[in-house]
Amino acid sequence: MDPIKKILKKFDDKEITSEEAEEMLKKNLSESLSYATIDHSRTYFKNFPEVIYADQKTNEQVADLATKIYEKSSKVLITKASKEKLKYLKENFSKNININDVAGMAFASKEKISLQDHKVLVICAGTTDIPIAEEAIFTLACLGIDSEKLYDVGIAGLSRVIHNLDIIRSAKIIITVAGMEGALPSVISGLTPSPVIAVPTSIGYGSNINGLSALLTMLNSCSPGIGVVNIDNGFGAGFLAWTFINSFNPAQ
Amino acid sequence: MDPIKKILKKFDDKEITSEEAEEMLKKNLSESLSYATIDHSRTYFKNFPEVIYADQKTNEQVADLATKIYEKSSKVLITKASKEKLKYLKENFSKNININDVAGMAFASKEKISLQDHKVLVICAGTTDIPIAEEAIFTLACLGIDSEKLYDVGIAGLSRVIHNLDIIRSAKIIITVAGMEGALPSVISGLTPSPVIAVPTSIGYGSNINGLSALLTMLNSCSPGIGVVNIDNGFGAGFLAWTFINSFNPAQ
Amino acid sequence: MDPIKKILKKFDDKEITSEEAEEMLKKNLSESLSYATIDHSRTYFKNFPEVIYADQKTNEQVADLATKIYEKSSKVLITKASKEKLKYLKENFSKNININDVAGMAFASKEKISLQDHKVLVICAGTTDIPIAEEAIFTLACLGIDSEKLYDVGIAGLSRVIHNLDIIRSAKIIITVAGMEGALPSVISGLTPSPVIAVPTSIGYGSNINGLSALLTMLNSCSPGIGVVNIDNGFGAGFLAWTFINSFNPAQ
Amino acid sequence: MDPIKKILKKFDDKEITSEEAEEMLKKNLSESLSYATIDHSRTYFKNFPEVIYADQKTNEQVADLATKIYEKSSKVLITKASKEKLKYLKENFSKNININDVAGMAFASKEKISLQDHKVLVICAGTTDIPIAEEAIFTLACLGIDSEKLYDVGIAGLSRVIHNLDIIRSAKIIITVAGMEGALPSVISGLTPSPVIAVPTSIGYGSNINGLSALLTMLNSCSPGIGVVNIDNGFGAGFLAWTFINSFNPAQ
Amino acid sequence: MDPIKKILKKFDDKEITSEEAEEMLKKNLSESLSYATIDHSRTYFKNFPEVIYADQKTNEQVADLATKIYEKSSKVLITKASKEKLKYLKENFSKNININDVAGMAFASKEKISLQDHKVLVICAGTTDIPIAEEAIFTLACLGIDSEKLYDVGIAGLSRVIHNLDIIRSAKIIITVAGMEGALPSVISGLTPSPVIAVPTSIGYGSNINGLSALLTMLNSCSPGIGVVNIDNGFGAGFLAWTFINSFNPAQ
Amino acid sequence: MDPIKKILKKFDDKEITSEEAEEMLKKNLSESLSYATIDHSRTYFKNFPEVIYADQKTNEQVADLATKIYEKSSKVLITKASKEKLKYLKENFSKNININDVAGMAFASKEKISLQDHKVLVICAGTTDIPIAEEAIFTLACLGIDSEKLYDVGIAGLSRVIHNLDIIRSAKIIITVAGMEGALPSVISGLTPSPVIAVPTSIGYGSNINGLSALLTMLNSCSPGIGVVNIDNGFGAGFLAWTFINSFNPAQ
Amino acid sequence: MDPIKKILKKFDDKEITSEEAEEMLKKNLSESLSYATIDHSRTYFKNFPEVIYADQKTNEQVADLATKIYEKSSKVLITKASKEKLKYLKENFSKNININDVAGMAFASKEKISLQDHKVLVICAGTTDIPIAEEAIFTLACLGIDSEKLYDVGIAGLSRVIHNLDIIRSAKIIITVAGMEGALPSVISGLTPSPVIAVPTSIGYGSNINGLSALLTMLNSCSPGIGVVNIDNGFGAGFLAWTFINSFNPAQ
Amino acid sequence: MDPIKKILKKFDDKEITSEEAEEMLKKNLSESLSYATIDHSRTYFKNFPEVIYADQKTNEQVADLATKIYEKSSKVLITKASKEKLKYLKENFSKNININDVAGMAFASKEKISLQDHKVLVICAGTTDIPIAEEAIFTLACLGIDSEKLYDVGIAGLSRVIHNLDIIRSAKIIITVAGMEGALPSVISGLTPSPVIAVPTSIGYGSNINGLSALLTMLNSCSPGIGVVNIDNGFGAGFLAWTFINSFNPAQ
Repeated sequence: MDPIKKILKKFDDKEITSEEAEEMLKKNLSESLSYATIDHSRTYFKNFPEVIYADQKTNEQVADLATKIYEKSSKVLITKASKEKLKYLKENFSKNININDVAGMAFASKEKISLQDHKVLVICAGTTDIPIAEEAIFTLACLGIDSEKLYDVGIAGLSRVIHNLDIIRSAKIIITVAGMEGALPSVISGLTPSPVIAVPTSIGYGSNINGLSALLTMLNSCSPGIGVVNIDNGFGAGFLAWTFINSFNPAQ
Repeated sequence: MDPIKKILKKFDDKEITSEEAEEMLKKNLSESLSYATIDHSRTYFKNFPEVIYADQKTNEQVADLATKIYEKSSKVLITKASKEKLKYLKENFSKNININDVAGMAFASKEKISLQDHKVLVICAGTTDIPIAEEAIFTLACLGIDSEKLYDVGIAGLSRVIHNLDIIRSAKIIITVAGMEGALPSVISGLTPSPVIAVPTSIGYGSNINGLSALLTMLNSCSPGIGVVNIDNGFGAGFLAWTFINSFNPAQ
Repeated sequence: MDPIKKILKKFDDKEITSEEAEEMLKKNLSESLSYATIDHSRTYFKNFPEVIYADQKTNEQVADLATKIYEKSSKVLITKASKEKLKYLKENFSKNININDVAGMAFASKEKISLQDHKVLVICAGTTDIPIAEEAIFTLACLGIDSEKLYDVGIAGLSRVIHNLDIIRSAKIIITVAGMEGALPSVISGLTPSPVIAVPTSIGYGSNINGLSALLTMLNSCSPGIGVVNIDNGFGAGFLAWTFINSFNPAQ
Repeated sequence: MDPIKKILKKFDDKEITSEEAEEMLKKNLSESLSYATIDHSRTYFKNFPEVIYADQKTNEQVADLATKIYEKSSKVLITKASKEKLKYLKENFSKNININDVAGMAFASKEKISLQDHKVLVICAGTTDIPIAEEAIFTLACLGIDSEKLYDVGIAGLSRVIHNLDIIRSAKIIITVAGMEGALPSVISGLTPSPVIAVPTSIGYGSNINGLSALLTMLNSCSPGIGVVNIDNGFGAGFLAWTFINSFNPAQ
Repeated sequence: MDPIKKILKKFDDKEITSEEAEEMLKKNLSESLSYATIDHSRTYFKNFPEVIYADQKTNEQVADLATKIYEKSSKVLITKASKEKLKYLKENFSKNININDVAGMAFASKEKISLQDHKVLVICAGTTDIPIAEEAIFTLACLGIDSEKLYDVGIAGLSRVIHNLDIIRSAKIIITVAGMEGALPSVISGLTPSPVIAVPTSIGYGSNINGLSALLTMLNSCSPGIGVVNIDNGFGAGFLAWTFINSFNPAQ
Repeated sequence: MDPIKKILKKFDDKEITSEEAEEMLKKNLSESLSYATIDHSRTYFKNFPEVIYADQKTNEQVADLATKIYEKSSKVLITKASKEKLKYLKENFSKNININDVAGMAFASKEKISLQDHKVLVICAGTTDIPIAEEAIFTLACLGIDSEKLYDVGIAGLSRVIHNLDIIRSAKIIITVAGMEGALPSVISGLTPSPVIAVPTSIGYGSNINGLSALLTMLNSCSPGIGVVNIDNGFGAGFLAWTFINSFNPAQ
Repeated sequence: MDPIKKILKKFDDKEITSEEAEEMLKKNLSESLSYATIDHSRTYFKNFPEVIYADQKTNEQVADLATKIYEKSSKVLITKASKEKLKYLKENFSKNININDVAGMAFASKEKISLQDHKVLVICAGTTDIPIAEEAIFTLACLGIDSEKLYDVGIAGLSRVIHNLDIIRSAKIIITVAGMEGALPSVISGLTPSPVIAVPTSIGYGSNINGLSALLTMLNSCSPGIGVVNIDNGFGAGFLAWTFINSFNPAQ
Repeated sequence: MDPIKKILKKFDDKEITSEEAEEMLKKNLSESLSYATIDHSRTYFKNFPEVIYADQKTNEQVADLATKIYEKSSKVLITKASKEKLKYLKENFSKNININDVAGMAFASKEKISLQDHKVLVICAGTTDIPIAEEAIFTLACLGIDSEKLYDVGIAGLSRVIHNLDIIRSAKIIITVAGMEGALPSVISGLTPSPVIAVPTSIGYGSNINGLSALLTMLNSCSPGIGVVNIDNGFGAGFLAWTFINSFNPAQ
């Protein structure tokens, strides 16, 4: 039940005064640090606490935010963290934190996360796209979703795609990660009625323009059924997949 | 069952020769016109026949393609058609074709489509975004999905958003259509755990650059759970929503 | 033999004076009109006379240039001409001019062109890409090259591509014409060792940006063996194919 | 009174000759160093002396310019200075210089600056936007303006915004600093009749393009009452706020 | 007093039930039409009712929205309306509507607006920038602010600027409108401590890129004290000026 | 002699009062119309009166400005005027106005302009670039400079360039006008020590992007001695050439 | 003969079961590593095994992939490898690997490659373009094609081009490598009927924008017969040249 | 006299054979090194030998090219050289080389260069633009042209410009160097009939986009008489100024 409605009900029932209601509402919603305002209502609104984007934050800020969120919300997810930042978190936040070096992510949860299989498949086009694919897989795992993976199946060798047609067509959601010309999502989407979440990566050179070429390709796909996220945003792709599963399998 | 597998089985069972198998495979897959190759395998691969993008095709081409696809696949959907093209279709293809002038779309189906409610909500930010929102709603209806709509709830008047918080939070999939700065999907996504499909529109002026500003905003959203489609691609948004429903509710 | 060397030889042989040599050289090289300088040395340098780009020239200019080039070089090719310009040419230049309305091109030749088959295949992704594909085919025909065509075999329905694998793999040069996301050349190139000439078209909408999206896709292809020409430049693709054939089959 | 008018008056009163007037005018207006021309008329024209943009200047140049401006104008402000440059200034210009490491700024004034409260509020969307917000606050303080701050109230958690509605609506000028999609100024502006000065930051990744995405969002806002400054230009935002206060409260 | 607080008070005072409160809140906030949701809370939040952006709306939609807003909020402002739309409004909405053909705007108010002089100056660089300057002036007038104007004082003839130095330096807010290279705001801002609101226009050709060149110039100005609005957004500039006046002169 | 100095001298000589001096200064400098401020000091500063850029001005505005400038400055030049505007000028401003339809320009002068030969050569790459080349030639003629022209000598047929080497190398200033890839100025500059003024045109298609491709080519030229003006700015090129001649041949 | 057809024939001949056929097909097509899927069918489809793009792969990944491809396909080519990566390959993959430090490439082959002369010429515009030109030459050598080279013959000194006219006109395919304004391919193509493969490089500064200027120049060339590859893609140019030779000289 | 004509005359006079003539022509024109083709005809065509662009060349290449050019042409100019490269040149090429550390340039000449005064003025807008201004000044000096300089006279303090009006108006050519918004050339050009060569610099931040903002400003200037060179191309500006002087003062 909505914590705000709860407080309003108490106020209506004369259990608390108007001033107390206001105070409770504010405390419940967010916590002010000198350098941040932690949004404790996030779990209510999004079914998951605020995620820490570690890039350009100091080690101390990341560890401090992680501690605060973990205490209040029982879990915490950190993205785009350098190896050095992940090491700092292990030493200063918690030794039991779950770390994925390739994806640059960390996760801690008070309750054990058990994975459920919703037939999510993560495909990447090249070996250099793997860190972003891992970001999606790790994100899904933190959200309780198991996933299968197919790596390095770019369209230059279409046989690799067709060889895996059964796996592709049996998936319910497919996350495709690709740099260079970024044509993989179009090809995959043409082979399956399942939704494709497309993640452009900044891998490439020359007129690739840091992933803009792959991004435009994915947005202009002539095959319908593709949703695009930002360049290198593996986390966003995993999270988006989860929102759909969440909508249709609320018990999970 | 896969029509290709069927043919292969017949071949294996010696019911047909190798030459007959090849011939059958080709016929089944596509039909060559002088100006087009109709992909009759599309229904097998995507659960929906090829969609006709009418812009820059002649009236005759659109009507001819519509007839061919309708005959083989029992339904046909046409997008981005001018009023004049829609009128031509009504006169030359079928008087019973279902037309939406605002969305620039037409649809015909041999079997009646009954709508199912999967709690899809279509929100648009301004009155001028309505044609693209209608495109999404019409697409969903053709695919058998009912949807609710909230029009003109841009963030300049946040109260319009908050006033509708219950409707927003009870939706399972939300399609948000917005031009100008395109910030609506971020705000909506921050208020609900459900997935948001974001459609930038080309509405605006100056540094809007035909919708690129709104597109970039949606891709860079700090709220996770958003999948973006091309500028003015209301059809793509509706189709994408359907692929998710389709994956998790195959009986529909 | 090089016309310049011929004149120099005459000069060396004292057949002509220095002044006569200079005069002859200049006459031979180009012709000055008030609004143009016709490059009559073009046939010597390129094995084909100057081609008239009709767009933004007046009807009179096009017909006048065509007459001058036709007289001196025995053939003349006109590109990017509107239907109205083509009609004017038929009435004012020559009734026997060979016209292709879809491609917006015209051609006249004093000697009959007989077509040779060098296994050139022209593929286009969608019906709306046909005018540009026709431009390539017409250009090739004017240069004496026959070609085969496959229209509307976009990657959204990959079966159309695979169904034609034999035709694709037996071609020696493949010209692929595609708008939207422009991924067709990558897919085709992955299936054949033959060279692929990629022509992006301006077909599409939204973030397609008048063909820039397709252009970038083709330049960033992860499949080697692709040469790209300008957006909507079907003529350039046909001409480029011919230069290769010309280099390796000079007798043609 | 205008120093130029003063000199002209002296000339008119025959107190000085034409040559002396010219000489005085030049001296008063600017000072030529080998590498710079200090604009001493700036205080007359802008009510504040020339500000030193330290980036890409040498330590020696910054300290020398600071000394010259401080002597003539009694105060000096330095922006975009690295920690190392700030340290150099402390050691070589003046130990009493006021330094803000986070903002990369320094300030010295012969007269004590007393802060006045004009209800300026500085809001930033994320922790990583803090340095730019601090730049605005420090600038305001150097100009004698006190300000309140709200940090990390991005729109992904709208409750943080709404929770602070009273603070927001009681401010007379609001400076909003945001990277990523940059939608915060639109949301804030929709909630208050007060002017919003919007500062895009270069925080983000992928299609953010070093802050251009946030910049475009702010320029295209559908909520009127927003003035935009350059990416990462916290100083410009603070200065702009001051010009308005200055215009309407000249005594300050 | 806040209408929402009023309703909550009634609820707290048991004058109305919870259901009545909810109903009243919703009614008061917005009105749902089939094609729009009028934001009646806008006057509360912004001190001015919702403004109708007429471009790309039908005549009927504009007149209908105008009527609804005028009834509830007693005034209505319409921007970016063609001459034909303005004529339609005169005939179908109200004969007494105040129209500015050059600016493409219309305004109606139940109460007479009396203009107050706050020393706002509108400067434009060229004759072709006048429509955008007029948009700012008309907007200010609708908001009760008188303004002075200086037209066609571009920097190519700096004497026109300097000649008007007294007028410039006596203004409290200056709106500068400029296309081409857009350098006028920098020059003006260098001559006065007053704030400059800069409006780039789409006037120019070649590498002007529809006003982007002028926009970038204004954002990169080396003179502090400039706030930029969108290309051709004269309305936004006038509104922004008013928000500042409004903040410091609330009685107005 | 400087008119400002003249007035100041009169003031110093007590011939006029301070108020009269101010009045005279203002009158002499500019003239205020309702829609424009004519800069009558332009002739003093630039040796040529203000030039009227006719595009986006009304017929009446252009004729009125032309009359005012002509009266005060004895000559007037109008650029970028449509055929219809030129006709209006002939009928409403003066029958004796000198008109160039191709260049879209008009010129009137009270004194006869006699042309001087300073060996200026205008080269254009293609027939479609002629209007911009004519703009440069007409501008030069209005400024008293004769010029020679070479049209349609694009680099695709290098012999046309080399054939004219003597003409090229004997020119003192060369204006080169080119669209498409815009490589002509580089080639010309490599063949002569004379300065090359490069004018990109918007002629081309596809990735030409309205002349940006040609513009970038000219700016990045590896041959030094090239100055670039805006896309399609033939007037600017002619004017720039004249400023150099003017600097070194002041008697002209 | 097609390995897939072979397996299908065995199945048809009842030599193998359906399961065995499927298993054989999959093994033959690709090999799954944890971080990559090697496409062993590449030699069948492209007449050359998969090429390893070394940039952004770890040393271990490159050496491991090289080993796997070399074993199965008897040769392996590595591109865009740093000096340090090339050294690692020499020590960990094979001492006999053929290395080109300037081009950043390595190649190993079980069978000796004997070079054939097909009159391929590689021209580069400046000394700094040499690494990309070397990439093309090394690639051609690995594919069995000899090539001639002309370095540093930019168009600023056209005599260098003309001096080499005989060499240029006797080549059957010309690869031109150029940065800065990238005009060399246009000039070369104007002098020969042979095809020109154009490689833009990222050499230059300012408005060169990392090679985009040169790329646009090459795409917009007014001389037909040019195919463009990605910026800095010397490998792609060499490979493309080979595909044409391969098509017309299959015995090679 | 043209060295080519000389050789042709000898051939005509039977002093040399056809083979000797060809050999002599080639030797005279260029010199082939393994990594470069020195263009010894440059002095003939451009009145100055080839200039070495040092960036991205090795120390050895720069010193070797310098030696070769110096020997043949008696002078050599090197641009864009790092401090370390300049030191290497001093040690390995010649101790007497003339070096400018700020400009990153070096120059050696067998004959003494005496400077002539042609009233060239170099103005830069800010202290950080000085290296590019120095590049122009050093280039001019190597070409025998003296120049005056005005540093740090940006338009934010217009008095600095006006204070120097006499110096500005007495110059015959003005090179203006400016980053940020790049408006200085427009302002300067409005004050003088002399030509202005505009050099945008990459100084600035945010939407400056590495100097593109300043470049666009300069190209779109509403004041005629401005020629633009590439971003940071101080050398090009100096060289361009010299070509004009050279054309009109050939004796110099």
